[in-house]
Amino acid sequence: MNVLIDVSIVPLGVGLSLSPYIAACEKVFKDAGLKTALHAYGTNVEGEWDDVLGAVRKCHEMLHAMGAPRISTNMRLGTRTDRVQTMEEKVQSVIEKM
Amino acid sequence: MNVLIDVSIVPLGVGLSLSPYIAACEKVFKDAGLKTALHAYGTNVEGEWDDVLGAVRKCHEMLHAMGAPRISTNMRLGTRTDRVQTMEEKVQSVIEKM
Amino acid sequence: MNVLIDVSIVPLGVGLSLSPYIAACEKVFKDAGLKTALHAYGTNVEGEWDDVLGAVRKCHEMLHAMGAPRISTNMRLGTRTDRVQTMEEKVQSVIEKM
Amino acid sequence: MNVLIDVSIVPLGVGLSLSPYIAACEKVFKDAGLKTALHAYGTNVEGEWDDVLGAVRKCHEMLHAMGAPRISTNMRLGTRTDRVQTMEEKVQSVIEKM
Repeated sequence: MNVLIDVSIVPLGVGLSLSPYIAACEKVFKDAGLKTALHAYGTNVEGEWDDVLGAVRKCHEMLHAMGAPRISTNMRLGTRTDRVQTMEEKVQSVIEKM
Repeated sequence: MNVLIDVSIVPLGVGLSLSPYIAACEKVFKDAGLKTALHAYGTNVEGEWDDVLGAVRKCHEMLHAMGAPRISTNMRLGTRTDRVQTMEEKVQSVIEKM
Repeated sequence: MNVLIDVSIVPLGVGLSLSPYIAACEKVFKDAGLKTALHAYGTNVEGEWDDVLGAVRKCHEMLHAMGAPRISTNMRLGTRTDRVQTMEEKVQSVIEKM
Repeated sequence: MNVLIDVSIVPLGVGLSLSPYIAACEKVFKDAGLKTALHAYGTNVEGEWDDVLGAVRKCHEMLHAMGAPRISTNMRLGTRTDRVQTMEEKVQSVIEKM
């Protein structure tokens, strides 16, 4: 089952600059061979469910290992059986209607 | 790694009454032996990461099998290494300070 | 327009114990006369859109005043024109189908 | 108070193609003079709290007027008092650390 997620990972107890932690997660997603798109309040990740969710788990483990004692993540997950639609096609589909 | 999630699963293309689908997911969580708490805009689920996320995957598969061609889920995920805190303790901790 | 929200407010830069901040927000909601239900990963709040969203704004202002330099909130918002359904009715509707 | 949100608006009861509704919301944000960035699972919107949240309300009203009887929105909201950081700076800050 293919899934498109949008994930925002917030480590707590590490001060106010979260970008080193977000960069570490981006690396986890890249190393897993997943397609990603970073934006100002999260990251789109696309792939097989177990690959994508396994990478999110690795992000949590990595951030705890980097010293974050607590993490609060917010994630959207979309699956569909009617058709296949990539991240680019989703964005394009909205732009065409604007 | 233990995780507390709060999950809101929204099947699309099945009309406006979502409660049969949410009830089906509740059953998936119960059958997985996970601790849950239902509220008016989601469900708390607590347990081992792979058990909890595996059950969320089963919910998506179940809802697609029930006829939902598209699902948009929103999930919060909390992990911590500093201490163990159950769902009840979290709520109690806020109530004590009110 | 009536709205049911579920809100999880995460102050950053204030350490790991978030319950005093969540308790302060609960008080903001109560003082606004809104119906609320606290759970282990957020709070349901029901009422007129401007009252509810105005109270969420007050929470952010309050938490900044309490010393939180940064806040990351996650919120679900549900509106409907087909029928009126309270928080209790939503939960009951799922339980009946389990 | 400035706020950066990331919003995913899901109209129910209108079939599976959501892009016309998302495009309508994009227009609401543009018409409000707000800075936006569309991605594959939501939209970043930046501005004064009341302007941004007022526009989200207008989206709900617009989508109901377009025939959606029920809407389930997911929104992240970030505010901070320590510094000002635009959407572009947030993304750049992560990229530099990758």
